[in-house]
Amino acid sequence: MPDVASATAEAEPPRATPPPRVAELAGGVGGAKLAQGLQALLGDRLTVVVNTGDDLERHGLAIWPDHDTVMYTLAGLDDRERGWGIRDETWTAMDQLGRLGEETWFRLGDRDLATHIVRSARLAAGERPTDVARHLQRALGVAATILPMTDAPVRTEVRTDDGWLDFQTYFVGRQQQPTVHEVRFVGAAEAAPTPEVLASFDALRPTDAIVVAPSNPIVSVGPLLALDGLRSATAAARARGVPVIAVSGIVGGRALKGPADRMLVSLGHESSALGVALLYADWVDAFVIDTVDADLAPAIEALGLRVVVTDTIMTDDAARSRLAGDVLRAI
Amino acid sequence: MPDVASATAEAEPPRATPPPRVAELAGGVGGAKLAQGLQALLGDRLTVVVNTGDDLERHGLAIWPDHDTVMYTLAGLDDRERGWGIRDETWTAMDQLGRLGEETWFRLGDRDLATHIVRSARLAAGERPTDVARHLQRALGVAATILPMTDAPVRTEVRTDDGWLDFQTYFVGRQQQPTVHEVRFVGAAEAAPTPEVLASFDALRPTDAIVVAPSNPIVSVGPLLALDGLRSATAAARARGVPVIAVSGIVGGRALKGPADRMLVSLGHESSALGVALLYADWVDAFVIDTVDADLAPAIEALGLRVVVTDTIMTDDAARSRLAGDVLRAI
Repeated sequence: MPDVASATAEAEPPRATPPPRVAELAGGVGGAKLAQGLQALLGDRLTVVVNTGDDLERHGLAIWPDHDTVMYTLAGLDDRERGWGIRDETWTAMDQLGRLGEETWFRLGDRDLATHIVRSARLAAGERPTDVARHLQRALGVAATILPMTDAPVRTEVRTDDGWLDFQTYFVGRQQQPTVHEVRFVGAAEAAPTPEVLASFDALRPTDAIVVAPSNPIVSVGPLLALDGLRSATAAARARGVPVIAVSGIVGGRALKGPADRMLVSLGHESSALGVALLYADWVDAFVIDTVDADLAPAIEALGLRVVVTDTIMTDDAARSRLAGDVLRAI
Repeated sequence: MPDVASATAEAEPPRATPPPRVAELAGGVGGAKLAQGLQALLGDRLTVVVNTGDDLERHGLAIWPDHDTVMYTLAGLDDRERGWGIRDETWTAMDQLGRLGEETWFRLGDRDLATHIVRSARLAAGERPTDVARHLQRALGVAATILPMTDAPVRTEVRTDDGWLDFQTYFVGRQQQPTVHEVRFVGAAEAAPTPEVLASFDALRPTDAIVVAPSNPIVSVGPLLALDGLRSATAAARARGVPVIAVSGIVGGRALKGPADRMLVSLGHESSALGVALLYADWVDAFVIDTVDADLAPAIEALGLRVVVTDTIMTDDAARSRLAGDVLRAI
């Protein structure tokens, strides 16, 4: 027996440094693209903590837009042409829902509906949202772990000239047309991050990192930071030497997708990478900006942030992996 | 003004006798076909009281097989080639449900799913099953009224060599292969017919009728009669002179569809129109049998039933209306 043990020890190859653990804070599309790049490099060492403030109920079903966008993207099922939902989608049930008198402005494909049906059934049976999320991810073969930021209900609402609107009514129903004067995260004060989210932060070492996706800083990253427990877990990780690296979702003064640019302005911020950096400066170590914004680097560095300038537009798989690599090298 | 009133009165055509009111007791396919023929002749004067013992929950959704078969048929949406479900159906969600680890032996099409989704949402919101049913029927433009026999849960179970099975596990899951030794209607003893069902019976006059569809006498008509309140409402209508007319679902000793013939035999009855008549004799006035069973007429008449011999096979719209006409003429 000692011989065998000894032989095994001798045959063992020199251990490669394991890839870092990364916890990504993400909203929808931008977060999903960066997560795909990170997953390609890190596999199951990636944990994506997703915003749940956009979650809603439609037709009695629990819909989690940000979680599902990340999940479908990490499962390789995302429809890139349409920019949301699942590939090879059909819309038969939605047509029939309309015929049955249901509102149909929030489009749910047949394939997508299966996700919501399974989720709703499991939630109704008393399963925790986090466990339901993990079941769905495993069924679709996702290597990374995607965690709802909390199992408690948090709902993002925006105040417009038409009063307070829930987020999807503003985002999908009104197509982001109303000007946003105020944002609130109903339930956030009472909501705690899940044990799984806290454990993933606790597991981070100085060789690891927290990455903030190029998502909308107000309504995607905002709800995550609105959780006291998530904010303090981030601060605790930084105190242990874990770097926090954010990627700007504003490039050349414009949002790549969605209303972040207009929302920043109407809420009194600057619609630029600098404007985002100002929002993140007190809890982030490094900031990744696009080459077109290189001239903003000195101003951002003046805030005390390390600046990484690179191409942040994630048009294809290669671009997603390249940006992910740039982010990891910045650790 | 008196002139106008007088002129109106004179212009009024002689009133035609309104068509009779008919309450049909129905299961699935056979009940739906006859209901379609009756609806073509009676329009909104038809009320179909459907068996709810087959109802089940799948993927957290409330599925009502008999109600929906009747509803889709009366809405002109039924798929006649497949024999169940909706025409122009697709199966995308079902494929995806399988991918998410769900059992898929109970096939639900995308169009059909819309019904279950809307129903489940409304039930979860606290609506009564009868109100939910009426909402769906109206949305699909059904002229007749289709009423669940009760708003309370009743579940048909069959005892086989594998023990007690819920009905759809036996019917769809095991494809009716196990021999049925016993049948029970769980919850029937505590379940009352809805006020709407009782009102539709109370509204019947001697010129009207209660029609029993050519459905499975054991597991389609059986649960209806298992409700004390429905049985006594039928008896009360008969006492007022309302005829009860049943159509045999057994033709030439065989069930036109489903396991009724084998089930009759394994439960100790005769698989023939006479066998069905024996089950119905104490609460039915007239019995409609197929021409191929004409030789059974004397034996059925000997039970005290009036016998109508006609072609009962409802292959197409014309055949459905013709049988419905024969039934109405028998009143």
